Amino acid sequence: MTKLRNDLLLRTLRGESTERTPVWMMRQAGRYLPDYIKLRKQYSFFERCQTPELAAEITIQPVEQIGVDAAIIFSDILVVPQAMGMEVQLIESKGPFLPEPIKTANDLERLLIPDVEERLGYVFQALRLTKKHLDGRVPLIGFAGAPWTLLCYMVQGQGSKTFDGAKAFCYTQPHTAHRLLQMITDTTIAYLKGQVRAGADVIQIFDSWGGLLSPEDFENFSLSYIRQIVAALKDEVLTIVFAKGAWHSLAEMAATGAHGLGIDWCIRPQVARQMAGDKVALQGNFDPAKLLSPIPVIKKEVTAMLDAFSGYPHVANLGHGILPDVPVDHAKAFVETVKEYKHKGVLIK
Amino acid sequence: MTKLRNDLLLRTLRGESTERTPVWMMRQAGRYLPDYIKLRKQYSFFERCQTPELAAEITIQPVEQIGVDAAIIFSDILVVPQAMGMEVQLIESKGPFLPEPIKTANDLERLLIPDVEERLGYVFQALRLTKKHLDGRVPLIGFAGAPWTLLCYMVQGQGSKTFDGAKAFCYTQPHTAHRLLQMITDTTIAYLKGQVRAGADVIQIFDSWGGLLSPEDFENFSLSYIRQIVAALKDEVLTIVFAKGAWHSLAEMAATGAHGLGIDWCIRPQVARQMAGDKVALQGNFDPAKLLSPIPVIKKEVTAMLDAFSGYPHVANLGHGILPDVPVDHAKAFVETVKEYKHKGVLIK
Repeated sequence: MTKLRNDLLLRTLRGESTERTPVWMMRQAGRYLPDYIKLRKQYSFFERCQTPELAAEITIQPVEQIGVDAAIIFSDILVVPQAMGMEVQLIESKGPFLPEPIKTANDLERLLIPDVEERLGYVFQALRLTKKHLDGRVPLIGFAGAPWTLLCYMVQGQGSKTFDGAKAFCYTQPHTAHRLLQMITDTTIAYLKGQVRAGADVIQIFDSWGGLLSPEDFENFSLSYIRQIVAALKDEVLTIVFAKGAWHSLAEMAATGAHGLGIDWCIRPQVARQMAGDKVALQGNFDPAKLLSPIPVIKKEVTAMLDAFSGYPHVANLGHGILPDVPVDHAKAFVETVKEYKHKGVLIK
Repeated sequence: MTKLRNDLLLRTLRGESTERTPVWMMRQAGRYLPDYIKLRKQYSFFERCQTPELAAEITIQPVEQIGVDAAIIFSDILVVPQAMGMEVQLIESKGPFLPEPIKTANDLERLLIPDVEERLGYVFQALRLTKKHLDGRVPLIGFAGAPWTLLCYMVQGQGSKTFDGAKAFCYTQPHTAHRLLQMITDTTIAYLKGQVRAGADVIQIFDSWGGLLSPEDFENFSLSYIRQIVAALKDEVLTIVFAKGAWHSLAEMAATGAHGLGIDWCIRPQVARQMAGDKVALQGNFDPAKLLSPIPVIKKEVTAMLDAFSGYPHVANLGHGILPDVPVDHAKAFVETVKEYKHKGVLIK
C-alpha cells in the first residue's frame, strides 16, 4: 500500500497533535466546480456514480483544484435504498424522488438485504480506482447515510422540510419502523465494511435529518442504529458521525466510540466541546452561506472559527454541504485560511 | 372592559402560580379545522385576513371547538411587508411568493414605514371584534414576525429550507440589511402597539427562521431588533418571543425582559430552563408530528412533557405550528391532557 504523504486528518481523528488543522468540505466534489458541471451535462447522476472512472475523476477534482486535505468518494446516500430494491430517481435541481415509498409492514416485503458486492460493487470499484489515482496524496473518506435519514426518504418518497410523513410512520407503526431501520442498518454495515476493504481510510455517517427529532426520538429512531454501525466499524477504520442539528446528544454520540463528530454553525464550538468531552475530534462548523461573503470576510470568519476550536482536535469543515453557487475562489479562500492559520492553543492527546 | 374569566395564560406569563398549566397551539386557527376548511373554499387568504368578521370567526373556532386557553388572532406575518409596499401572494398549499424581492439598497426606496392605522387597520378591527365576541372567555394574543424572519421572505421572495439568498444579502450588504431590519422593526413596533390598543392581551413575536443563523449572526441580524421590540412593548403588554431553533441564545432572549420564551421539541425542557433562568415562562414544546400518533400515545407523551416542565411557569403548546392533517380529536386530546394534568412540582413566583 502507498504510504500517505498527508495524514493530517487521520492523526487528528486519532487525537494526535498535528502541525496544523486538516480541512475538507462536505459536498466538495461536485456542484460548484466548473469541471464537474461539464461532466453533469454529459452524464446522468447515476452514470457519474456508477462509472468508476467518472466517480474517481470527480472525487479527485477538489484535491487538485481546491487543495483539501481529504477526498470523499463521489456517491449518494440513496444508493443504499436503491440496492435494497427501491426505485430512486435523482433529478438535477429537483432532489430525490422515490415513486413507491414504504407505507406499511407489507411494503417491507419488497425490500432485501442485498449482497453488497453484487449491488454496490461499483462504489467499491470507484474507491479502489480513486485510491490508485490519489497515490497517497490525501486520505479517502467513504460514507453512508444514517438509517433514520434513509428511512426519511424511503417513507416520505422525497425531500421535505419536516419529514412529517416519515415521523408519522415511526409514531404510528413503531414496530415496522424498527424493522426497517434494522434492515437499513444491516445493509449499511456490510456496505461500509466493503468500503473499508476497498480502501476507505475514514468513514462518515451522515444523519442529515437527525435534528428533526426530539432527544428521546433521536435515541430511539436514530442513535441506537448509528451506535450499531460505529461499533461494527470503529476497530477497523476511523469514523465520523455527523447528525446535523442533534447537538443535544453530543455526549451520547461521543460515547459511541466514534473518532470524530460533526457539528453545524448553530452551536458554539466551546459549547459543543463541553458536551462532547475531550476525547473526540470535532468537525465543522462554518455556515455554508458564509462562503458567499466577500473573501476578506471569509478569511476573518474562518480565523474566528479556528480560534474557537483551538486547544482540541479539530477538522475544519463546513456545517453542511457547500452551496452550488459558491465561487471557486471563495472555496479556495476557506481552505487556504485554514492552512495558513497558526495554532494559538495547545493540542492535547 | 370585560373581566377575563380564564386568565391562566396571563398569570403564568407574569410568573404567578396557577391551578393548572394554560394551553394553546400555534396555528390553532385554521388548517386542520373542518369549519375553517369550508371558509377557505369560499374566500381567499387575504379576504379571510382582511374581513374582520371572518378573521374573528376563525380566531374563535379553536376556543369553542378545541377548548384552548387563549385565542390568537387569525392573520399572517407577511401583512407587514405588504403594508410596507411589497406585493405578497399567499397561494394555498404553495406558500408565500413575493414577486419583486429586495436585492440592493435601491430596492429600499420602494418601501415605506406605513401609517399602521391606514394600512393595517383591518387587523386592529379584527382584534376589536374578536375581543367583543370572546366576551372575556379567554385572553387574545396578537403577533408579528421577527424582523429577521420578515427579511428572509422579503429578500428570498419565497419559502426556503435554508434562506441562503437572504443570508448572502446580509453577509454581502450588511449596511443595507441593517437599514431594512430597522425599517421593519419600526413598522412592527407601531403595528404591535396598535394591536395592544385594539385589545391584545399578549403579543407573540415569531422568529421562524432565527435558528438558521449562528449565535453571533442571530444576535447581529435578529435578536438586536427583537430586543428593541420587546423594550417598546413589555411595560404595556405581556410578551412572548419564539425564535425557533435558537436555543443557543435563550439566556440572551430572557434578558430582553420578555415574559415568555417559546422552545421547540429539540431541546429538553430542563436544559432550556437552565439556560433561560428562573424568571421567564417557557412555552412549548410538543413535536407537532406527534399529534399524528394514536391518542393514547399523545396522552402519554403530553404527560411526560408536562412532567419535564414542572416546577416553573409553563405554557403548554406545540414546538411549531399544528400540521394540516392532524385529526381534530388528536388536537383535543392534546388540550384535554394538559387540562387534566395534576401538577407534581411547586410553581415559583
